[in-house]
Amino acid sequence: MNAVDSVLDAAPVADWRSYPIHVALVGVQTANDHLAVTWSDARVSPFHHQWLRDNCSCSQCVYSVTREQLFEIVDVPPELHPQRTRIDEQGQLLIDWQDGHHSRFHPGWLRAHAYDDASRAERLAQRPQSRLWGAEMSAQLAQFDYPTVMTDDHTLLQWLLAVRDIGLTQLREVPTTEDVLPALAKRLSFIRESNFGVLFDVQSKADADSNAYTSFNLPLHTDLPTRELQPGLQFLHCLVNDATGGESVFVDGFAIAEALRQEAPELFRTLCETPVEFRNRSRTSDYHCLAPIIALDAYGMVSEIRMGNFLRSAFDVPVEQMAALYSAYRRFITMTREPRFRVQRRLDAGQLWCFDNRRALHARTEFDPASGARHFKGCYIDRDELLSRIRVLQR
Amino acid sequence: MNAVDSVLDAAPVADWRSYPIHVALVGVQTANDHLAVTWSDARVSPFHHQWLRDNCSCSQCVYSVTREQLFEIVDVPPELHPQRTRIDEQGQLLIDWQDGHHSRFHPGWLRAHAYDDASRAERLAQRPQSRLWGAEMSAQLAQFDYPTVMTDDHTLLQWLLAVRDIGLTQLREVPTTEDVLPALAKRLSFIRESNFGVLFDVQSKADADSNAYTSFNLPLHTDLPTRELQPGLQFLHCLVNDATGGESVFVDGFAIAEALRQEAPELFRTLCETPVEFRNRSRTSDYHCLAPIIALDAYGMVSEIRMGNFLRSAFDVPVEQMAALYSAYRRFITMTREPRFRVQRRLDAGQLWCFDNRRALHARTEFDPASGARHFKGCYIDRDELLSRIRVLQR
Repeated sequence: MNAVDSVLDAAPVADWRSYPIHVALVGVQTANDHLAVTWSDARVSPFHHQWLRDNCSCSQCVYSVTREQLFEIVDVPPELHPQRTRIDEQGQLLIDWQDGHHSRFHPGWLRAHAYDDASRAERLAQRPQSRLWGAEMSAQLAQFDYPTVMTDDHTLLQWLLAVRDIGLTQLREVPTTEDVLPALAKRLSFIRESNFGVLFDVQSKADADSNAYTSFNLPLHTDLPTRELQPGLQFLHCLVNDATGGESVFVDGFAIAEALRQEAPELFRTLCETPVEFRNRSRTSDYHCLAPIIALDAYGMVSEIRMGNFLRSAFDVPVEQMAALYSAYRRFITMTREPRFRVQRRLDAGQLWCFDNRRALHARTEFDPASGARHFKGCYIDRDELLSRIRVLQR
Repeated sequence: MNAVDSVLDAAPVADWRSYPIHVALVGVQTANDHLAVTWSDARVSPFHHQWLRDNCSCSQCVYSVTREQLFEIVDVPPELHPQRTRIDEQGQLLIDWQDGHHSRFHPGWLRAHAYDDASRAERLAQRPQSRLWGAEMSAQLAQFDYPTVMTDDHTLLQWLLAVRDIGLTQLREVPTTEDVLPALAKRLSFIRESNFGVLFDVQSKADADSNAYTSFNLPLHTDLPTRELQPGLQFLHCLVNDATGGESVFVDGFAIAEALRQEAPELFRTLCETPVEFRNRSRTSDYHCLAPIIALDAYGMVSEIRMGNFLRSAFDVPVEQMAALYSAYRRFITMTREPRFRVQRRLDAGQLWCFDNRRALHARTEFDPASGARHFKGCYIDRDELLSRIRVLQR
């Protein structure tokens, strides 16, 4: 890398990232509706004229304070062509447009946004991958010390990456005071409120408005499957646990879904394609959500599990699909009961679960409320906030 | 309706609804894996054995306090059969199961949940329909008085139904104090927080972290397209508006999408099927979301528009799809600029917009901050909360 590259490296290009120049621009050829750019590693990247004009980052097109675009592509005709193109002495692509506008593209930025097949495949391969787990996780829990998480950004990042990639973590050395969750949430972003409150108290209540607030065995579920967007992260902070029973159970819903995809692909497909309704009705609220139990992302990867048997409506599918839906549903529930997938641990006072609520199904074994106090405090934070915080910490 | 029916009518069946009996059960026939029930209007509804056992609402199967299921279908074998079935003197379906369990089904509940083709089509036809609008809405705004909304449940419901079905409403006679939005939100449910705060202040700021906080023309957009779930409702409360310019502009994104579906089906399809990335980066946050501009629900109806040109990343699709994506995107943006779709109104102090942020794209014309003060206060509430509140008010 020469001196000029280093200067360019440091310059942010209309956002908060910087774009190192690993590969230089070495040539540019004009075609009908695009430029074909050649890189020093011989890769050729086509860039459409419209794409280039759209992504001009000059101070007329992008407001420098917010780094947001002022220009809209419809402000120029679709057939707008470059008048002249060249690579300058700093290795940047310069374009003089027919209408007199000038654009300049940083080679690091351009390479990072190239959309030829090789560049797109490279970016795809760099996406974070979920690490699937089963019963063995019980002995390998991702554990972090609360005091360190609260003071050290590196530990905070390691914890958040574990939440993102594993989906089940535990914090230890947590004070048993009610101000912990608001403080911890603030370290990430902010709490997602629900009809159960900003913070909720998991304890046995006479007037329970959810089976969670009883002492019953609670089967494996995600929280709030009745909402269009299920809460991303769930926090369960143990203030006191002197009761007999009431152990926490977790399974990796992604691992179960992938096992189902292998073992019974047609049942997997049924759970991906059949919308099921979940509902939660109380005196003051009435939530419904119609969505499949397994959701896939744009790449076909499992991105979300939605499950809460006690919040499910009667199945409502055409008659000829009903038997298949029950087969698939039974198989999924049966898998959540298989020992190979289950982690069962007691949470003691001063410990805190933080897990991906859209992935790690959780349950509680029955407990005896007469045997001692049991009080967990809980809250939610959405996945968007987790990912945003990780990106900022990684800058 | 006879006396017995009236008694049954009043009984809630394991939820907060009641199920009037419009049609009586007149016969039940046993088949291999289901019962075929005949109604007094000659409709025949098959109910699978598993579905019936799954939906038993007895006190062993459903906890009466929470009205949530304790039983799970995997607790019985898939081949469980009824031993005996009959219709009792109250018109209910009784089933004695092989394993000794007994179930009783209220005919009103059973009819409301029947999944034969005719019953499903009936329910589908009863879904709320969006009322599409264009420029004519400017003279027909759905307006409500704030004081009445705050005190009268019927007016509250009429307003919320207008928000749901039209997606653009105005409240008048609103005090110009900062406690209005929290009070109004509480009348519905609770506010959805974002990185911009619980409440946000729309005014021109020197250190803007969004183009919304400048005096520039702001093109038609939805708020927070950078989040997996865009906020459902947006509230904009005008405290003062003495500046020149700065008019509010709205278009019905559903109307534009439906017009596009008619006028250029292939462009419509491109916007439904191509995930586009939106991002919003600041010193303390870094949000990304990859999703199509037009989302369809399970019935193929337009359910959401996601659009914010100033928050959009560089398009990242395979080379051979890029020109088509630009054609579709340009066409959509061009349509948002067409007079036939646009409502332009000045919001004065004491007025408040409440609109469906995932449907009604909004914009602001440029204003002159030197000409006078302009201060709007804003907040969000999610669609789930709107629909829940409507259902409770309709009970």
